[in-house]
Amino acid sequence: MQGALGVWMIGALGSIATTVIIGTLALRKGLTEPLGMLTTGDPFKDMALADLTAIEFGGCDIRPTEQRSVARQVLNLSDIADPAGCREIENAFLQIVSRIDKGTARNCGDAIQQLTDSSVMRDCSLREEVAEIRRCLQQFKRERSLTEVVVVNLASTEPPLELDRCHMDLQAFETCLDRNDAAAVKASTIYAYAAVREGCPYINFTPSSGALVPAIIQLAEKNKVPVMGNDGKTGETLVKSALAPMFTCRNLAVLSWEGFNILGNMDGSILRHPDNRESKIKTKDQILSRILGYAPHSRVHIDYVPSLDDQKTAWDFIHFKGFLGAKMSLQFVWQGYDSMLAAPLVLDLVRLADLAKRRGEGGLMPQLACYFKAPLGVEEQRLYEQFKMLLDYAELATATRSHHEICV
Amino acid sequence: MQGALGVWMIGALGSIATTVIIGTLALRKGLTEPLGMLTTGDPFKDMALADLTAIEFGGCDIRPTEQRSVARQVLNLSDIADPAGCREIENAFLQIVSRIDKGTARNCGDAIQQLTDSSVMRDCSLREEVAEIRRCLQQFKRERSLTEVVVVNLASTEPPLELDRCHMDLQAFETCLDRNDAAAVKASTIYAYAAVREGCPYINFTPSSGALVPAIIQLAEKNKVPVMGNDGKTGETLVKSALAPMFTCRNLAVLSWEGFNILGNMDGSILRHPDNRESKIKTKDQILSRILGYAPHSRVHIDYVPSLDDQKTAWDFIHFKGFLGAKMSLQFVWQGYDSMLAAPLVLDLVRLADLAKRRGEGGLMPQLACYFKAPLGVEEQRLYEQFKMLLDYAELATATRSHHEICV
Amino acid sequence: MQGALGVWMIGALGSIATTVIIGTLALRKGLTEPLGMLTTGDPFKDMALADLTAIEFGGCDIRPTEQRSVARQVLNLSDIADPAGCREIENAFLQIVSRIDKGTARNCGDAIQQLTDSSVMRDCSLREEVAEIRRCLQQFKRERSLTEVVVVNLASTEPPLELDRCHMDLQAFETCLDRNDAAAVKASTIYAYAAVREGCPYINFTPSSGALVPAIIQLAEKNKVPVMGNDGKTGETLVKSALAPMFTCRNLAVLSWEGFNILGNMDGSILRHPDNRESKIKTKDQILSRILGYAPHSRVHIDYVPSLDDQKTAWDFIHFKGFLGAKMSLQFVWQGYDSMLAAPLVLDLVRLADLAKRRGEGGLMPQLACYFKAPLGVEEQRLYEQFKMLLDYAELATATRSHHEICV
Amino acid sequence: MQGALGVWMIGALGSIATTVIIGTLALRKGLTEPLGMLTTGDPFKDMALADLTAIEFGGCDIRPTEQRSVARQVLNLSDIADPAGCREIENAFLQIVSRIDKGTARNCGDAIQQLTDSSVMRDCSLREEVAEIRRCLQQFKRERSLTEVVVVNLASTEPPLELDRCHMDLQAFETCLDRNDAAAVKASTIYAYAAVREGCPYINFTPSSGALVPAIIQLAEKNKVPVMGNDGKTGETLVKSALAPMFTCRNLAVLSWEGFNILGNMDGSILRHPDNRESKIKTKDQILSRILGYAPHSRVHIDYVPSLDDQKTAWDFIHFKGFLGAKMSLQFVWQGYDSMLAAPLVLDLVRLADLAKRRGEGGLMPQLACYFKAPLGVEEQRLYEQFKMLLDYAELATATRSHHEICV
Repeated sequence: MQGALGVWMIGALGSIATTVIIGTLALRKGLTEPLGMLTTGDPFKDMALADLTAIEFGGCDIRPTEQRSVARQVLNLSDIADPAGCREIENAFLQIVSRIDKGTARNCGDAIQQLTDSSVMRDCSLREEVAEIRRCLQQFKRERSLTEVVVVNLASTEPPLELDRCHMDLQAFETCLDRNDAAAVKASTIYAYAAVREGCPYINFTPSSGALVPAIIQLAEKNKVPVMGNDGKTGETLVKSALAPMFTCRNLAVLSWEGFNILGNMDGSILRHPDNRESKIKTKDQILSRILGYAPHSRVHIDYVPSLDDQKTAWDFIHFKGFLGAKMSLQFVWQGYDSMLAAPLVLDLVRLADLAKRRGEGGLMPQLACYFKAPLGVEEQRLYEQFKMLLDYAELATATRSHHEICV
Repeated sequence: MQGALGVWMIGALGSIATTVIIGTLALRKGLTEPLGMLTTGDPFKDMALADLTAIEFGGCDIRPTEQRSVARQVLNLSDIADPAGCREIENAFLQIVSRIDKGTARNCGDAIQQLTDSSVMRDCSLREEVAEIRRCLQQFKRERSLTEVVVVNLASTEPPLELDRCHMDLQAFETCLDRNDAAAVKASTIYAYAAVREGCPYINFTPSSGALVPAIIQLAEKNKVPVMGNDGKTGETLVKSALAPMFTCRNLAVLSWEGFNILGNMDGSILRHPDNRESKIKTKDQILSRILGYAPHSRVHIDYVPSLDDQKTAWDFIHFKGFLGAKMSLQFVWQGYDSMLAAPLVLDLVRLADLAKRRGEGGLMPQLACYFKAPLGVEEQRLYEQFKMLLDYAELATATRSHHEICV
Repeated sequence: MQGALGVWMIGALGSIATTVIIGTLALRKGLTEPLGMLTTGDPFKDMALADLTAIEFGGCDIRPTEQRSVARQVLNLSDIADPAGCREIENAFLQIVSRIDKGTARNCGDAIQQLTDSSVMRDCSLREEVAEIRRCLQQFKRERSLTEVVVVNLASTEPPLELDRCHMDLQAFETCLDRNDAAAVKASTIYAYAAVREGCPYINFTPSSGALVPAIIQLAEKNKVPVMGNDGKTGETLVKSALAPMFTCRNLAVLSWEGFNILGNMDGSILRHPDNRESKIKTKDQILSRILGYAPHSRVHIDYVPSLDDQKTAWDFIHFKGFLGAKMSLQFVWQGYDSMLAAPLVLDLVRLADLAKRRGEGGLMPQLACYFKAPLGVEEQRLYEQFKMLLDYAELATATRSHHEICV
Repeated sequence: MQGALGVWMIGALGSIATTVIIGTLALRKGLTEPLGMLTTGDPFKDMALADLTAIEFGGCDIRPTEQRSVARQVLNLSDIADPAGCREIENAFLQIVSRIDKGTARNCGDAIQQLTDSSVMRDCSLREEVAEIRRCLQQFKRERSLTEVVVVNLASTEPPLELDRCHMDLQAFETCLDRNDAAAVKASTIYAYAAVREGCPYINFTPSSGALVPAIIQLAEKNKVPVMGNDGKTGETLVKSALAPMFTCRNLAVLSWEGFNILGNMDGSILRHPDNRESKIKTKDQILSRILGYAPHSRVHIDYVPSLDDQKTAWDFIHFKGFLGAKMSLQFVWQGYDSMLAAPLVLDLVRLADLAKRRGEGGLMPQLACYFKAPLGVEEQRLYEQFKMLLDYAELATATRSHHEICV
């Protein structure tokens, strides 16, 4: 019989993690519907996924926060009308986050560094940091009697990691760690390496390129640990990947696609910093040329507008040319709560990564492409084609379920 | 060897027909690219479609117009820079439209009736009107030495035809015509019946429900005449059919989808009239519930704003609910020239209908679903799935080409 | 010394009235800022206006509601973080609305009639209804020891009252009442007449044209009772009156101004009904031609979209022509909570009407034009000019304050 | 009797100058209406302004262009239907621009420098450059027998000029020129100084801060030469200055005002360069805090989108807080042709500057504030107040007209 599934979130005090936890608590109480999630409905529900009632939350964060007020903001946006239910959820949530570990902010840039307090790891060697994270994961698994632990990176975007020879090959990367070559890693690299070494599936929900470097993917393949990233596809890019193929279906030439994103949460605050923003814009930018087969003029702008809090607002202006060269346009305005859009994807990803692990699959999970802005190892950027990849996988996994269950 | 293909357009002096003709002339001269058309590129170009240089235009219209100024408006919106080229196109165009026939405006409602001049058929029996249209088609075919003639309905939207027992069965319908039961037809019914009787493929690019009634589809099947409709999918509905499946891919519940269309051309002028508008809103309205599997609150508004001329502008407001019941929204604004969007679809449809005829196919053409707001006989409303139906057909038609060529 | 000021609201259980009461309670506790109100800041605060702590709320409504849930919705949208404060406000609010009177729904149309329960006045003569309302006002004044009572119409929009000879002259109108000529009045007429007869200033915050008919304005002048209306200017029209003069300042010709409003509250639900909507569209529509000096193509659309609740969303498309006849456009999207925008205006109006009464002014109050979509007796529609009228009045009232205080 | 008025435009081959010339030619022929201009209507037409038929165009530019194609673009956007009229205008235009002088691009930044060809002044001293510009002005005046010449800066935006002690005082500035202190000037400084020395009114329609430095304004006052700037208010900022006071009129707190401008003309191309963009954003940015009395979060973004050509598109997102702290928003999308909006303002400014000169007024012209994003010497930023300043001036100038005419 299967024990509980552990979800260990990097950035466990952030807005997305808070929403993941509160949402799961509310779903368990039947106070809300599982909107935004795919895995509770057809054709996913016969796939032997971990039950939502059998999930334990843990994780780490580098900064102190006022958790009660973050929780209230999430509850306030929700449609949970029952005040008693809200109080119970709030209390359960506070207990969960009281057990969070401290993490590392290594090479995350000044913007992130500033948020840390004194308890964050400093002056350790790379190997010591890895060891500390592995210790946290072991303790989490042991103390809560977990069958599996999935690690999810929900931390703020780091500056890009320049990929070097040492990231291309597992052996070279190990040598780097031995030599304590600090420039070769970001915090996300430490977490990913530690997770895979512990046999924990790893989901990079952020654009941070330091997480799933080729060497770590190699290790994941070798050790049969499923991993996937990068950058959860929640808002403007989601619409882009649904809409861009339309222009192909009508042979309309996209001349320019200009995107302008404003948001006011911690994510936005960090993305004000050019180094961190660079990572984000990269994962948002490649999608158009892949879908269209040519590169229109396109730029993605991001700005921090504190008053918006978690309500990301994006304006996209698409200029295109049709018959007889006539120029026309399509604009859209997306107004979504980033964490409300991200949290259900995190729950889906965690359940699907856990299943993949139990099915003996290792390395990248291309079936999860539809969840990511820059899906690793997948060329396909059209939303509906990516979605079909997931449906095909679900069908296959359901069909082969009995076989696996017998083998396991 | 194959002779020229005739295209006989109902509403031949309207904005779409004008754009079809001018665009074809410009393409022949190499003054513009075939943007907006699919059939000049892969995988369609090996399908033995009629060449653009081998198309002859004819048709009918019920109203007098200032054709030179309409032509200039189209050329002005185009990217054809060469004034000499423009003059040549204008002259060739004027010669083509000078040979247009008069049509019928039977039961088209006051809005359309008002446009007609004295030369339009009046006081004829239904059989006489049918005979007159058939005579026009025969003469067009004979005088221009055409192999095939495709009839395309580009006329203004008629009020809906209430379907009755007499429309359900070919025999009953013939009896209706014999009895001169005027209430049983609209102008579009006369045209469609005449076309199919002449063996001419018939495309209903309008929302007029009178055109392809079941009895006429039966006749088309029996006589191996390809037909398809209804209502070319050019703007707001195109975006809808590309975007709506996104909400399914993310399990986001659409609460409301409100659409507001303003336009200033003849189409808009006619759609001011509630009777005519009813037809249009019907074809626009069914798409959401088919795609989503449930019916959100949804209304489509259309208003006539003369200053916009042919530049349709649509604002859509989509309200949706996600995780924890949070409400979010997506808005889009579409600004497109209706005729510039419609004309290349007409050229595609004409070529594909002609091919189907030569391939021996009769009745509805489900492969053309992606071109229509309300594709007859096709449940699928998702743009990309409809597009795949077309690609699959193209592949099949290419594969079986040699076979057909040998047989023919 | 001055006693408390009574505010008697028609539609006292509606969303605006609820927001008025809850907002006042929150302001008294210092839990929120008086945003949206002008009269708490310069140059109004030296005008001897009634203090917010010295206001008592009463009123009537024709329908039963779940007041606790309405109150929670308002509090949920507010920025009051303190749960204890919210509970206190909620309780105080529930006590206030528990004392509300029943009203009349005479000739309000089916849409409104349907909302009423059995306790609403029926089968009374006009004179009996007037007497009943006067009795309510007297009792409110007496029981709460009020110096003045201002009556505010916040009820749902009635169908338009066709103005007749009998509305033009006080004598003729009195005869109508005597004859019990039911067709000559709407509910709002009864309220307005009763209020003015009781010497209570009357504010018509709704578009209902039945309220301040010429005969009642005559009575108000004669009896020195200040009255004003119609239709609080809270959203789209507010923006219109700020923006339209810009086109004059640049000599840009407005070709079309198309407005599309969607909303989901009770107001929206009633406005679905064509009769009631007609009143609304009328007050919204006249503004442009007055500001521009010519009438561009313009239409205002209103639709009910339940999921929006109180969040009115309006899209306006403005098409204009500039130098060399070039066509350009401006669009705006307004997303505001109707009641949050209306409530502070109501508080301002009540305080300014009370002051006018104490200053011995009677009849229309043109100084309040900036608060209304269709200000009675005022041609000026430009927001900033209207605002200046208010500032000028404030200056005058402040300057003459000591004089009045001495006289009174 | 009054001779012709000369308009000498810096950037005479640019899009605005082209539109100014073509528009004037079209107005003279009666082929278009003077939309966008104020000075042809009430109350300006009795002010003894120079007649549009008595204006001669000259100027300079630093780059070669394909003038025929620029002219055709302008004519294509216009509503001039008559092809013969267009050809005549085109020819008259080509003759005018064939006589344009070469200018200077001193210290204009790499972006502008790159555009210049070999004929542009190089290796001259500052005094030599001044002398050359003065020579051009003299020759223009002499050859065309002009009474007055107004100089208008329509060149691309330069990087900001750091104001120094030497710019604050005329004497110090003269010494700078004598010493050939090249770092102390930009091209715009040379032009402005030369113009004022020649007694020519100078209008800085650009944001370039180098033009009207305090020393040059001093000189203008001393020599009775009218000057004004900076930066023509044509689009997003125009709307801002009309709309921002609305929030004050309703005591709504603006939290954030985020503006995003995209455009594709030469202006946009130059503004891609951070140095040049800095000047622009500065003049756009100060307006809000002046109107509101506090500084909301606000940023103005500009990006170059080539496909848009002259059609500037701006999206503004305004987040504001009202009663009970509720957050609401207003968005607008402005789509205007920059040159079509700018050209009529240039014609107004030229006529009003010429009049001021003839009226013996020197130094800054505060009455022209409504035409500028950053009106020199004027605190008032509200459009309608600025407009009132212009109307008041017009009234005064009309009233004192006879007096001046007698004196002159």
